[in-house]
Amino acid sequence: MKDFYKLPSGFLSSGISAGIKKNGKLDLGLILSEKPCVCSAFFTKNKLKSAHILYDKKIVNKEIYAILANSGNANALNGKKGLSDLKKIIKSLSEKIKIHENSILAASTGKIAKKMPVDTIIKNIPELLKKLSKRDMNFPRAILTTDLKTKVVTEELIMNGKKCIITGVAKGSGMISPNMATMLAFILTDIKISRNLLAKVAKEAVENSFNKITVDGDMSPNDTIIFLANGAAENKIIKKEDNNYLKIKKALFNICFKLSEKIVEDGEGVTKVIKICIKNAKTKNQAEKIARRIANSLLVKTAFFGESLNPGRIISAAGATLESIDINKIVLKINNRSIVSNGQIISSNIREVEKNLKKDKINLELDLKIGRFSETISTTDLSYNYIKINADYS
Amino acid sequence: MKDFYKLPSGFLSSGISAGIKKNGKLDLGLILSEKPCVCSAFFTKNKLKSAHILYDKKIVNKEIYAILANSGNANALNGKKGLSDLKKIIKSLSEKIKIHENSILAASTGKIAKKMPVDTIIKNIPELLKKLSKRDMNFPRAILTTDLKTKVVTEELIMNGKKCIITGVAKGSGMISPNMATMLAFILTDIKISRNLLAKVAKEAVENSFNKITVDGDMSPNDTIIFLANGAAENKIIKKEDNNYLKIKKALFNICFKLSEKIVEDGEGVTKVIKICIKNAKTKNQAEKIARRIANSLLVKTAFFGESLNPGRIISAAGATLESIDINKIVLKINNRSIVSNGQIISSNIREVEKNLKKDKINLELDLKIGRFSETISTTDLSYNYIKINADYS
Repeated sequence: MKDFYKLPSGFLSSGISAGIKKNGKLDLGLILSEKPCVCSAFFTKNKLKSAHILYDKKIVNKEIYAILANSGNANALNGKKGLSDLKKIIKSLSEKIKIHENSILAASTGKIAKKMPVDTIIKNIPELLKKLSKRDMNFPRAILTTDLKTKVVTEELIMNGKKCIITGVAKGSGMISPNMATMLAFILTDIKISRNLLAKVAKEAVENSFNKITVDGDMSPNDTIIFLANGAAENKIIKKEDNNYLKIKKALFNICFKLSEKIVEDGEGVTKVIKICIKNAKTKNQAEKIARRIANSLLVKTAFFGESLNPGRIISAAGATLESIDINKIVLKINNRSIVSNGQIISSNIREVEKNLKKDKINLELDLKIGRFSETISTTDLSYNYIKINADYS
Repeated sequence: MKDFYKLPSGFLSSGISAGIKKNGKLDLGLILSEKPCVCSAFFTKNKLKSAHILYDKKIVNKEIYAILANSGNANALNGKKGLSDLKKIIKSLSEKIKIHENSILAASTGKIAKKMPVDTIIKNIPELLKKLSKRDMNFPRAILTTDLKTKVVTEELIMNGKKCIITGVAKGSGMISPNMATMLAFILTDIKISRNLLAKVAKEAVENSFNKITVDGDMSPNDTIIFLANGAAENKIIKKEDNNYLKIKKALFNICFKLSEKIVEDGEGVTKVIKICIKNAKTKNQAEKIARRIANSLLVKTAFFGESLNPGRIISAAGATLESIDINKIVLKINNRSIVSNGQIISSNIREVEKNLKKDKINLELDLKIGRFSETISTTDLSYNYIKINADYS
């Protein structure tokens, strides 16, 4: 694993194989803070919600000390039993670490509609606690499902002379869209910051990163992003939007943006990442709608997979939004080279653009020329492997 | 070809290879009526429109004698040249058959953003005219793109003692949704009917058939459905909603419904057809929204392709619409057997339902239990072959 996993002061973590996954891979992780944390959390908007979301939502405003995360089982579509199973697990952990149940958040990812193996998990909690460490490498692994790589990003910054750390850990990798979908992300920091300000800065970071990626247009019942700040850096508490706040804002955005890039790059079966930028739309909303439609068009995604130039599918996807755009005005660029203008293809650029399609990062820019708003969405191609992964994963 | 292609009185058709497709397959077809027809037509709502749609829209209310259809080239995204190319072709045909240009409709399907081979097409018009026949078999072939099968449905009915015929010819097969997408359909009849009544009955038939299917959620720039009635059966003209009208309505619906079924079954790479019925929704719109979301979910489609039971993905797709549904109330049935109720899976039925997933027709029924509105959408699975077809087709 090439990612360096550096935890902020006062945080410990661990990851073990607790028998939730059948293949013996890591599947249970714990994050523990020595001090109480202020928390800000974001959950899926899907009407089907994992039990952990129902649980977490009630306590996110309390003092948080820990996050128990598992992969291999989404604990969604398990009816009332899903929630009561989770409560049993949390209760057991609570007793063993002597922390109130209302201070422990949970996060699950994995297969939907499978009962949680409660006894197995509870039996493994002592092992999970024993492994807690300041330099643990296993938590980022323990939350993975079909991900191929762990996803960790760290930023260091100075707040009033105190060295502070922010570390983000995430997992993808299918069902990514349009509101974070099967992804978990935990962003931990030792910065001392007020709850209100954390909520504000976290919201902005999420909106401009995790909410701007899509792999397959599906939204999962489990999407969860949790920000925890334990104040262990002992900086003077950040309460207002001063220079320090701006530093935090920049660092958090960097972390969330890099994590979301890692999620897209590691999307199921992905061979290419395509950044879709809609420029000069009438409204931000119009730009986003068109970007998402292109990003989720199977015909566009399969064309990129086949490295075949098909600007017609891109323009057609834009037109299918029924937004009032003028086909004769728009300019489509692929990797900075124009390929459509005046409502037709620019033949002289075809060869150059086709050559560029072999790259694994593609920049697509559609200039609508009807306004001044822009939006960018990152997406992926659609490969045989996506189907293989998802036809078999049940 | 097993489909019997029976034309109504007064209609002729033909189909030839005019060199639009590189592989020598049929690619140019003509329908000609000996008498003037009243016409009703439906076109894509995509903002990118094929040149033929811009052309047809201006003349659909005139007396129509002919439809010139081609495959292999969509004549979309060709700028102003697309329309002027089409006009040249129509003009040449008009001169040769001595019918006014405003009486000839056009319809194109195939690759987007390729210039029409005008000269080649014009050169082949005499051959196309020579082949015109009352018992032609080639028109249904000449409009196909990636379709594997021709699609023809005929109904006979008696109007005031006169034998009448309605014949529908269509092509699919990718980009099918949500408003008819890359499909062409021509419904011809010798019934004498007023323009207004034809418009009314055609609209109803389209709404409940072609507009309720989806293969990949993409909407094409070329979708076109044309109804022509030439009155050659010499029945007393149908002007009001009497018993004869009801007979026509039933026959037209049958034809459109069967053609749309054929399109779905022959969708790109399809191994299974899945009928998704949402029952007892609060509104018709809610039922349709949820049905379409499930129908277009890649995770649902790949699960069906893999014949793997994954009710979680179905419920999750429903939940991702953000419609206010109660997960604990809904009942999900697959091939008439309940698999989810009370917000959880019914374990005792798993084996039976899994066995049923091997069938090539799947009935999925989601009862929301919050209202009294229903909607059904037909969709397909998503296979390796879909990707192969669309990664290569450029």
